[in-house]
Amino acid sequence: MTAAIDYIALDWGTSNVRAYAIDGAGQIMDEATSDKGMGQLEPHQFEPTLLNLTAPWLSEDRVMPIFACGMVGARGGWQEASYGQVPFDVHRALKLTRVKTHAPHIEVQIVPGLCQQAPADVMRGEETQIFGLLEKYPDFEGTIILPGTHSKWAEIKSGQVTGFKTYMTGEMFNLLSEQSVVRLSVAEEGWDDDAFLEGVKDAMSAPQDFTHMVFGLRAQSLLAGLTPIEARAKLSGLLMGMEIKSGMDSFATGQVAIVGGEKLMRIYRAAFEEFDIDPLCDVEENFTVRGLNLVAKAQKEGVAS
Amino acid sequence: MTAAIDYIALDWGTSNVRAYAIDGAGQIMDEATSDKGMGQLEPHQFEPTLLNLTAPWLSEDRVMPIFACGMVGARGGWQEASYGQVPFDVHRALKLTRVKTHAPHIEVQIVPGLCQQAPADVMRGEETQIFGLLEKYPDFEGTIILPGTHSKWAEIKSGQVTGFKTYMTGEMFNLLSEQSVVRLSVAEEGWDDDAFLEGVKDAMSAPQDFTHMVFGLRAQSLLAGLTPIEARAKLSGLLMGMEIKSGMDSFATGQVAIVGGEKLMRIYRAAFEEFDIDPLCDVEENFTVRGLNLVAKAQKEGVAS
Repeated sequence: MTAAIDYIALDWGTSNVRAYAIDGAGQIMDEATSDKGMGQLEPHQFEPTLLNLTAPWLSEDRVMPIFACGMVGARGGWQEASYGQVPFDVHRALKLTRVKTHAPHIEVQIVPGLCQQAPADVMRGEETQIFGLLEKYPDFEGTIILPGTHSKWAEIKSGQVTGFKTYMTGEMFNLLSEQSVVRLSVAEEGWDDDAFLEGVKDAMSAPQDFTHMVFGLRAQSLLAGLTPIEARAKLSGLLMGMEIKSGMDSFATGQVAIVGGEKLMRIYRAAFEEFDIDPLCDVEENFTVRGLNLVAKAQKEGVAS
Repeated sequence: MTAAIDYIALDWGTSNVRAYAIDGAGQIMDEATSDKGMGQLEPHQFEPTLLNLTAPWLSEDRVMPIFACGMVGARGGWQEASYGQVPFDVHRALKLTRVKTHAPHIEVQIVPGLCQQAPADVMRGEETQIFGLLEKYPDFEGTIILPGTHSKWAEIKSGQVTGFKTYMTGEMFNLLSEQSVVRLSVAEEGWDDDAFLEGVKDAMSAPQDFTHMVFGLRAQSLLAGLTPIEARAKLSGLLMGMEIKSGMDSFATGQVAIVGGEKLMRIYRAAFEEFDIDPLCDVEENFTVRGLNLVAKAQKEGVAS
């Protein structure tokens, strides 16, 4: 098997790591995952974690190229990788960070994150998904949304990432639903489309009331019979409404694509339907792997350094 | 001493309890505090906690009137007390909740919280401070701000509480500064006036960007040298800016009073200076005790039931 592997792709985030054995055609031959995310590893623990996870794919007879993206390259990760500055063209400006390893039969390189000076913003990992989307849809012009703990909205013009904005949507949802006073009124799971859309509309029409409306979930459950499932969906809607209001004000033109898990895509679609926007949602594609394919190819061709 | 005590005032919040022995002139003769807040007590633990805290003031020879306000009257507290509805006139509509006790020598009554049906909102404890302020300043017309974990803005017209709004300012500050990704860039203490005011202005001018601007603190510390102390003050400013933008949009006329600790008052004053507003800040007064004096008097006169 090792002989057929072209390179290993690593999607190494804060809470877990996904490894893929990729063949010469850019196809996934095998994959492995672990919960040993960057958040729980000291710098010296990355190499043994990687060797352990990918052992079946390695051989001492050859040096395996490995391309990694995500928080693995953050300060406090394995090794701090540089940021590319927007406006950023993946075909021109890709500078990989070579990691020093003890094992001689791996060659690890980390993809740069992206940064924006004003307003200051950073991403690590999502840039690779963006590269993947632009590889598959080279004519895409508009906004790519990458929902999650820290949702990103990125503006694409002429194949370049020209700007982006991060929203703490997922992280605030977790903090508020699990640890604030609102937790007393919010279900641990469940969904209600109407309550979600009400939250989206309320936040969009009066974003300055955000911290008031979050407390209002508690008050509505005490006074007006708001159910825990409705409260959960409405809290999600309030956060999404803030994100959509800001994002749509900032990035108004062109197409919209959503890159993320199926569940999150469905939620964003429901919100966008209110504005007659039908975003591109390619649920089948693994854009991280596709982006790392692009990086591996660029490096082979000497475009990346 | 027991003979000279007119009643005992209890300010029983989520995280601690303050008890005051009050004489016939409404003056504080003695006080006692404990960290046994409502948040850590089962219903059956309130009575022994109270007896223990106020033992030196009690005697088996007389029944001591005790008036309590705060989360002690919340669902899950000692006994759920009713809410008064806005518009609320303390001189007309005060309905106290009598608590059943085992000890025969105490008579405990809980002050109602206030509620508002639309938009749904609730308070417990702050209403008593409002009563106290209106007792001292009967002609006050305008907005009373009560900063804290859940900041309240209450509108006062003709001696009535006509409406109010709660903001999760303090609770969100704690969650974001201690538990979100931003904690990595925020100092545990310290202050910077300029960074604070920048946060206030940024949030007021683009409240829809709130969750983006919070993440921006992390990005600014990575890219632009924002110091941990500046980040702390700016996070506070962002939350305060949201509160002030919403509060000023909702309650625009009349005077402004701030009721709270000296440190918080100073912060709000600094923000209001930007709008040439000089709020009433009576740091000397204990408005909770003054409000409970009013409640005790009303009950004696048969106005409260």
